Amino acid sequence: MEHARSRGRPRQAELQDRLISSALDVLATNGITGLTVERVCALAGVPKTTFYRRWSKPFDAVVEGILSRPRELTYVDEGNAVRDLSRFYNSLAALYSDPIWLAWESLSRCEPSVRSNLAAQLEEEGRQRREHNKQALGNALNEQRLDAALAPGLILNVLNGVARNSAGLRWHTAESEVQELILRLIGLGLGTNPALDQSR
Amino acid sequence: MEHARSRGRPRQAELQDRLISSALDVLATNGITGLTVERVCALAGVPKTTFYRRWSKPFDAVVEGILSRPRELTYVDEGNAVRDLSRFYNSLAALYSDPIWLAWESLSRCEPSVRSNLAAQLEEEGRQRREHNKQALGNALNEQRLDAALAPGLILNVLNGVARNSAGLRWHTAESEVQELILRLIGLGLGTNPALDQSR
Repeated sequence: MEHARSRGRPRQAELQDRLISSALDVLATNGITGLTVERVCALAGVPKTTFYRRWSKPFDAVVEGILSRPRELTYVDEGNAVRDLSRFYNSLAALYSDPIWLAWESLSRCEPSVRSNLAAQLEEEGRQRREHNKQALGNALNEQRLDAALAPGLILNVLNGVARNSAGLRWHTAESEVQELILRLIGLGLGTNPALDQSR
Repeated sequence: MEHARSRGRPRQAELQDRLISSALDVLATNGITGLTVERVCALAGVPKTTFYRRWSKPFDAVVEGILSRPRELTYVDEGNAVRDLSRFYNSLAALYSDPIWLAWESLSRCEPSVRSNLAAQLEEEGRQRREHNKQALGNALNEQRLDAALAPGLILNVLNGVARNSAGLRWHTAESEVQELILRLIGLGLGTNPALDQSR
């Protein structure tokens, strides 16, 4: 009995994961109007009863999936703002080009039923994360004596916006341009530039 | 007969406009899953037959509405890049905070059926508009001898991203910060700054 249960658990967890991941895929591929239990179960290769044992509608599986995905993007200070901000930009650009993330964000904006529930929670998390990153970048700029830098919140906002555009509008920005932009933002962009050399 | 027709035309056009505007409102308020002919007609105060005389489904009215909305944001060179870019930023921020525009953009991203039809056309228009603005800004920067400016496409991308964030993420940027940012982007942000004084 004990034995059977310990073998059953992983299988249940695996089924759960498979259904969630199928729901996310169907959402990304077919949109919310095409998000049906039939499609989710066909993709997962399980009967519908397996789905309904867990959720009453496919959207609930999506929500559970979204909540379990990593969505923290933290500014990590490793002592070189140019390099640290480049890395931060790259991680943002990667997040924003994830089709499931895009579908979810769009959905949370255009579906008021989504907006009113989960989106408020995620928005608050986002706000806190931005506040955290602002502090971390502010400290880093101070420690690195980058006195001519723009306000840390503004710097993060700019990089976030450009990263979003690169995914959402397919408005590509070359790595060298991102680099140049960062230098301007932190006040090193004009004239001789020790930080640029340092980061190469 | 002639008389009756000339009175009938404006009424038909008014009805058409009212139905389209109701469809856009319902989309913004209720999302695509709540976009029903019943809601649209109740809001417009007309019977459903009036709707079905024009379109077969509410989404078609939305598309017609979207296509007729002004969506051109053109960089206008009036000889002062700081002021011209500030005005351009403000017009972007206003566009992106329009709830109907937001709902539409989100929809075109999360609904593949939308994406594949109309969104492709709008995307191409957007690409051409950005190309036009890039040229216009490039010329302005040359004429104003702003040799230390970043690439015009990158400048526009940054302002676009920050304007999007101010609406989409409610990540507010103060006017003074936008101004400071613009100065950095066009290479006037460090040290004494004639352009800043000029723009006040």
